[in-house]
Amino acid sequence: MIETIRDETGAQRSLGYTLEIGHPDGGARCILDITEAHTNRHNVLHGGVAATLLDNAMGATSSLTADATGRTPFLTISMATQFLAPALVGGRVTATGRVTGGGRSILFLAADLLDQDGTLIASATGVFKRANLPKGGDA
Amino acid sequence: MIETIRDETGAQRSLGYTLEIGHPDGGARCILDITEAHTNRHNVLHGGVAATLLDNAMGATSSLTADATGRTPFLTISMATQFLAPALVGGRVTATGRVTGGGRSILFLAADLLDQDGTLIASATGVFKRANLPKGGDA
Amino acid sequence: MIETIRDETGAQRSLGYTLEIGHPDGGARCILDITEAHTNRHNVLHGGVAATLLDNAMGATSSLTADATGRTPFLTISMATQFLAPALVGGRVTATGRVTGGGRSILFLAADLLDQDGTLIASATGVFKRANLPKGGDA
Amino acid sequence: MIETIRDETGAQRSLGYTLEIGHPDGGARCILDITEAHTNRHNVLHGGVAATLLDNAMGATSSLTADATGRTPFLTISMATQFLAPALVGGRVTATGRVTGGGRSILFLAADLLDQDGTLIASATGVFKRANLPKGGDA
Repeated sequence: MIETIRDETGAQRSLGYTLEIGHPDGGARCILDITEAHTNRHNVLHGGVAATLLDNAMGATSSLTADATGRTPFLTISMATQFLAPALVGGRVTATGRVTGGGRSILFLAADLLDQDGTLIASATGVFKRANLPKGGDA
Repeated sequence: MIETIRDETGAQRSLGYTLEIGHPDGGARCILDITEAHTNRHNVLHGGVAATLLDNAMGATSSLTADATGRTPFLTISMATQFLAPALVGGRVTATGRVTGGGRSILFLAADLLDQDGTLIASATGVFKRANLPKGGDA
Repeated sequence: MIETIRDETGAQRSLGYTLEIGHPDGGARCILDITEAHTNRHNVLHGGVAATLLDNAMGATSSLTADATGRTPFLTISMATQFLAPALVGGRVTATGRVTGGGRSILFLAADLLDQDGTLIASATGVFKRANLPKGGDA
Repeated sequence: MIETIRDETGAQRSLGYTLEIGHPDGGARCILDITEAHTNRHNVLHGGVAATLLDNAMGATSSLTADATGRTPFLTISMATQFLAPALVGGRVTATGRVTGGGRSILFLAADLLDQDGTLIASATGVFKRANLPKGGDA
């Protein structure tokens, strides 16, 4: 069952995006309706906001590998982002995470950010690390 | 002369950071006083917000290579970010950009995000492309 | 028709991999039979060799977007690589490139490196730039 | 005391570079005299070979944080590379690693590849993970 999470973190509240978990593919979604509050100097979606959505989608997808509540904490270690196309005010963008590899402590993730027409706006890969792993844990 | 720019873009207004240009080293600064509005699930600075500051500092530093007003538009093509340490609510972080190479249309940038104690919180490298380059322009 | 290219460059000769173009999906392949000549300190495939295969597959895929001979020169601007699993001596790895976006001068690429069992060994994203673009060209 | 290591790994033998440890700054060096054996289609240093030198310099620098022999195994988790300038046949390039952060199991590294004139040819950042960490170890 798909669960929508709002206002969980300060950054989420400030930017106004929603987080969805429970999709059958295991990938968390971060969804943003783009307004004037999210723009850069070119009056399109700020790359940093795009990175925030991609990071959060990958982090939440990491957590979903540990338990279905998606709350097991994972830390972003590194992230590489490509910015392929502009996203316009009035549009909706969705970042979807997926696990590409890893073990118990380190996970490899990827995520795509698409607009409402399915255009690829930005994509990312990231390395995430489980926080507070119980004793004896390692990758 | 150092100039402080506030509220220039939607993302800047939403997150509440300032941009400084005019430093003798040519590097633009993005400065944020961390509040509850900038946190992730671990109640520290959200990686996406860190990425926003690094991206904006690199983009503005790119623009400063073209003219002293720092308004010549450059687009972020790609960005790689490392997250080295947490930044706490109540602290201040500053991202400073620097040019590492490139030509007329493509620039290579790097940026470090430090907290008020000089601890390296995050660092990034990025590829930026000049928008609207006059005819005949290429790297 | 699939064409196999051997010994085209010095690095290709030194490492002994082959390049395939002409696949219907447009993605160039770099194929390596792993020997003791390709190992790191852990006696598995060296990450730098994996990066070479991924880089070359993406570069050749870029060239195939310009003409079917795959010889139009593109330069690697930046590349982000993740190392997911070890690849063993005696195995065969194949890097396959794909275009994810871009325009006339800048292309965004991705590539996966799989072993003979389909295990994902490494993956990369990259930014490539067309060299020697005719006058008036820009992204 | 500076120690020069040759032919330690298969990749090192195939490409013919040397590894230096023991520099006072703690950074391992990988040094290559560029020949026709290292070129790409543009007859300059292949990006994959540049990545190999950067990766190896960072990995060996990681190992030097654990003990002075530089043999403690670390694995490359991810790496982001920028290619800033061509390096010519007949020149010499040197990659030097440095630690930028991290803890006991995860280290953050950076490296620059310079030619004999001090021109920055390529730079990288990477995430490295200590292999075979004794029980109880984590970042």
